[in-house]
Amino acid sequence: MRVLGVDPGLTRCGLGVVDALPGHRLQAVWFGVARSDADADVDQRLLAIERRLEEALEEHAPDTVAIERVFAQHNVSTVMGTAQVAGLALVAAARRRIPVAVHTPSEVKAAVTGNGRADKAQVQAMVARLLGLEERPKPADAADALALAICHLWRPQGAISAPQRPPGALTPAQRAWAAAEQAARRRT
Amino acid sequence: MRVLGVDPGLTRCGLGVVDALPGHRLQAVWFGVARSDADADVDQRLLAIERRLEEALEEHAPDTVAIERVFAQHNVSTVMGTAQVAGLALVAAARRRIPVAVHTPSEVKAAVTGNGRADKAQVQAMVARLLGLEERPKPADAADALALAICHLWRPQGAISAPQRPPGALTPAQRAWAAAEQAARRRT
Repeated sequence: MRVLGVDPGLTRCGLGVVDALPGHRLQAVWFGVARSDADADVDQRLLAIERRLEEALEEHAPDTVAIERVFAQHNVSTVMGTAQVAGLALVAAARRRIPVAVHTPSEVKAAVTGNGRADKAQVQAMVARLLGLEERPKPADAADALALAICHLWRPQGAISAPQRPPGALTPAQRAWAAAEQAARRRT
Repeated sequence: MRVLGVDPGLTRCGLGVVDALPGHRLQAVWFGVARSDADADVDQRLLAIERRLEEALEEHAPDTVAIERVFAQHNVSTVMGTAQVAGLALVAAARRRIPVAVHTPSEVKAAVTGNGRADKAQVQAMVARLLGLEERPKPADAADALALAICHLWRPQGAISAPQRPPGALTPAQRAWAAAEQAARRRT
């Protein structure tokens, strides 16, 4: 199971590809940022971002695209461009019949750090630990995109959870998450 | 000069194609609405709208696409979908190297009725008169899209304005607009 996480933005759109491996392990495949020139017209900016998104889809062929949910009330000055980039990601996936999922920022933070209000540094640190990266992925937009992909793979009905389990028991994904969280705390 | 007007919306996206003819006349080429199923997932809804937009661009080959500007503070429940559809229209045009223009609702209303606060019925009535249509174009989204195209063709630097004119004189477009406005008032 391979997930492309997309942290939408018109100036910087974070992209991150994560594989779920056997044994509930995660592997970073690639991450980066699609950028557009803030001085260009909005149609050209959106086109530049779309092309980079299309390249990432072509190159990495994800099974699912996980996109951060954009809220209308957040940061009015940038929300329209952010919403438009999220829309481009939704359509680029739909054109290829790739399923999409949308996760809120607090879902993503809770999934990777155990705290829905974690700050960017905590998210970056945990993404690096969970993916076994020697350095924190930069810029933050790319780390957020990787976190989105991890959130999607680790959600309760995710790719690496057991399809059937006794009621009340932790899923393998939840156990892995709890273990990673504990390990991270020990190292902090 | 042929303009495709786009009144963006996720449930109904108005589309209208208008030609500027010699003699400062306007001609409606086509109008319609791209719809999406409100029960479908947002990626499928955006894809359905994009396909209809692409068809309109292919079929009518406009020289410019005029899109209504979406404001973040308007109608929070629908603004995200509206912004995303506007983004799709921007990118669909950019992919074909068709210039885009964005006009505010009040610019459009002022262009076709002389009043930036005109209601939908006034806009529909004036669009019908200016384009010589026997009936008011329906639904209102299609009329708004035709109005956007007219606004673009009639703006001061538009296709059917004189390239050079004495300072202070009305452009042919402004004269045509004033005459149409007067005629409309007489008939009201």
